[in-house]
Amino acid sequence: MARVLTPRAEDFPRWYQDLIAKAQLADNGPVRGTMVIRPVGYAIWEHMQADMDARIKEAGVQNAYFPLFIPESYLRREADHVDGFSPELAVVTHAGGKQLAEPLVVRPTSETVIGEFMAKWVDSYRDLPLLLNQWANVVRWELRPRTFLRTTEFLWQEGHTAHATEADAREHARDIHKNVYQAFMEEILAVPVIPGRKTKGERFAGATNTMTVEAMMGDAKALQMGTSHELGQNFAKAFDITYSSASGTVEHAWTTSWGTSTRMMGGLIMVHGDDNGLRLPPRLAPIQVQVMVVKAGEGVVEAAAKLRDELKAAGVRVKLDDRADIPFGRRAVDAELQGIPIRIEVGPRDLAVGNVTIARRIDGSKTPTPLGDIVGAVTSALKADQQRLYDDALAFRAERTVDVKTLGEAIEVAQTGWARVPWAAVGDGGEKEANGKAVTVRCLTREDGAMPDSDDEPNLIAYLARSY
Amino acid sequence: MARVLTPRAEDFPRWYQDLIAKAQLADNGPVRGTMVIRPVGYAIWEHMQADMDARIKEAGVQNAYFPLFIPESYLRREADHVDGFSPELAVVTHAGGKQLAEPLVVRPTSETVIGEFMAKWVDSYRDLPLLLNQWANVVRWELRPRTFLRTTEFLWQEGHTAHATEADAREHARDIHKNVYQAFMEEILAVPVIPGRKTKGERFAGATNTMTVEAMMGDAKALQMGTSHELGQNFAKAFDITYSSASGTVEHAWTTSWGTSTRMMGGLIMVHGDDNGLRLPPRLAPIQVQVMVVKAGEGVVEAAAKLRDELKAAGVRVKLDDRADIPFGRRAVDAELQGIPIRIEVGPRDLAVGNVTIARRIDGSKTPTPLGDIVGAVTSALKADQQRLYDDALAFRAERTVDVKTLGEAIEVAQTGWARVPWAAVGDGGEKEANGKAVTVRCLTREDGAMPDSDDEPNLIAYLARSY
Repeated sequence: MARVLTPRAEDFPRWYQDLIAKAQLADNGPVRGTMVIRPVGYAIWEHMQADMDARIKEAGVQNAYFPLFIPESYLRREADHVDGFSPELAVVTHAGGKQLAEPLVVRPTSETVIGEFMAKWVDSYRDLPLLLNQWANVVRWELRPRTFLRTTEFLWQEGHTAHATEADAREHARDIHKNVYQAFMEEILAVPVIPGRKTKGERFAGATNTMTVEAMMGDAKALQMGTSHELGQNFAKAFDITYSSASGTVEHAWTTSWGTSTRMMGGLIMVHGDDNGLRLPPRLAPIQVQVMVVKAGEGVVEAAAKLRDELKAAGVRVKLDDRADIPFGRRAVDAELQGIPIRIEVGPRDLAVGNVTIARRIDGSKTPTPLGDIVGAVTSALKADQQRLYDDALAFRAERTVDVKTLGEAIEVAQTGWARVPWAAVGDGGEKEANGKAVTVRCLTREDGAMPDSDDEPNLIAYLARSY
Repeated sequence: MARVLTPRAEDFPRWYQDLIAKAQLADNGPVRGTMVIRPVGYAIWEHMQADMDARIKEAGVQNAYFPLFIPESYLRREADHVDGFSPELAVVTHAGGKQLAEPLVVRPTSETVIGEFMAKWVDSYRDLPLLLNQWANVVRWELRPRTFLRTTEFLWQEGHTAHATEADAREHARDIHKNVYQAFMEEILAVPVIPGRKTKGERFAGATNTMTVEAMMGDAKALQMGTSHELGQNFAKAFDITYSSASGTVEHAWTTSWGTSTRMMGGLIMVHGDDNGLRLPPRLAPIQVQVMVVKAGEGVVEAAAKLRDELKAAGVRVKLDDRADIPFGRRAVDAELQGIPIRIEVGPRDLAVGNVTIARRIDGSKTPTPLGDIVGAVTSALKADQQRLYDDALAFRAERTVDVKTLGEAIEVAQTGWARVPWAAVGDGGEKEANGKAVTVRCLTREDGAMPDSDDEPNLIAYLARSY
């Protein structure tokens, strides 16, 4: 078979860009760092959105929409926040044919504008918790853009919530982090993640605590797949989000924010992709099965259409490919590139003996199967392949994660994988040293993997790795 | 009952703004002309999106996402287009802490950037038609903003398609216009619309034909609810969208675009709202039934929760309101304001005789109903109320539409309704005269209501009205 992509082992970053181009997932936009998400890629994003959105609503959160343009003065109200974002901002200075009196920032995130409206909407403790989410585009100017991973404009969801107590804010942020983010990534994306706490140096601008879910990519680097922040009363004080308590006192609220983005597309590709292209987890795949007419022949198209209908009736997301004028080999390569979990190849020779061939993208198997057994075979294959992708990613992570005792060993291990090392052996000074060698502390966890309540707990474990 | 809103008859524009504020649909954003879509309003928009998106996909169109920022030079390539938009543009001049070499326009619409990529993606006639849609935010600087109707930033879908022939482009634009836009508005929004052709003066910048769907608002003004454009080869020539035909010649494609936006929210309010608030068509309503505990009492909350479960099981979108600590009257007023089609009031006195009360928002009726009959009564009421809203809007439009013979009569009639007048009695000169009196030609149709193929057909009818 001809080589379709640069092999991963030869040049992983180039493989990644090749795959995105050849699977038609995305193109570079005309403005440096922006991207065009093509229909094949966008359909995957829509399936991510639909599943996450249902989980977010299940957690009691309501969607809303806040403006793209934020007055520059808003960002200045929370000092850490403006410091965190100012080099990344895109600024509108002219509109309606005139120079504006106050420049407008294109939102890099919406804490500030949402803080302003929470202050208006929250009056009494009865109005809390206020649980909001929005799906939107945001802009952060990128000097070293990479499709899906770091783009000047990206799509995301950003949750923003206000609570009466610190404990309620903390509980909510953890609920989202575990039951929405981690659950979605493991169950739907088939990507195992390490949930943990960011160090002070890696915290979100304005947060008192940032939690992350970290995934190991196919080159053993780490990718932050999503973050949840406790913002303490920082934004509530900056934006005057107060409420009258049951006893009549006026108190500042406690806020959180949490986000995931089109960056997850990059993670999906780098966890599950292979040298033939993407491999989509069946629960996520917009097309789970492609029924392909190998070549025209007596009753072939009819048999393929009938299979399509049967699979559709069984609840499978199925597409018929009857483009017999395009060589079968080319169509099969495209289906592999795009990661469609199952191809059913319908050809005259197989059909003559009542068979079609089930070709599975994930384990690479090809099995002639009687027509009558297709629906059962397909549904069980989809289920098995979802699990297999997860298991493979988990096994790879385990293989490339090494327990060590010292900072030096950790930096060494992080060249080719992840190091688990006592946080006490690293500390703020060790973190800086590691950063100087392009290694970062991805997160802190307890020894049993649980989420720490503070950076100062004894016996914390740090994950060190190179990262995207 | 206390007056909740400014009555429509007293001050329609004020009623509209009152309703949006008190039903918590939207707030003004911090930047003039922008809006915050609050959860109650955004849920309605999500239901609009979901239904339209399914219809758009059913028409064979694929979703994609194109960048927010467009190089200023792109807009200059199609001369009419830049003339049409330049006073409305918001421009990014600074980003990443520096002045940009080329200013970036925040997309007012995406014809130009999508044209650029269509040119890359289309090679042969086999790549056509290329049918794309995106859901996105766009920005057009508004001097006289009004929530949902004219906002500096709004949400919309924009379809962009390329075809091998003019006939195919025309057929596609008409298919979307009739089977997506008109069907969605009439079947889901319960808003009757007049589909027609815009005059030359009202055409989209760069189009060879603009089709519109026009609806009559509660003050008898017209609102353009959506438009579909044939763009001829204008954009294909400006962006070099060419394809090699089956016979090997290189040809320019024919493109279309079509869009609907959060402006439909404004139309929905102004068609169906009354002096007590919004009235939502049941097929659109995020909450179709609110089961309300009137006040606490023996078994009341349990009975209400059981009804909620029964209705949910029957496929009804239902919410339980058991906030017995908030006065029932206030909660009922809020439900009326937000237009929830049915309230089921569960109180101790009714329950004692095995009844609850069905309160219908749309006809204002209140009917004590045995518990065992609720599911059947609710599902038939939802169906009847959907039809009733449509019928009422249609009857109102018929009552306020007058057939006249001359331009003078048409302008007169348009002060209080819509005028149907022979286009031959108006013409380009008459159109200007009408415009001078704040009356516009909303669209042209054939006498039987069919879509004209050109402005020059004999016996066309023009609709003249005041408009939003």
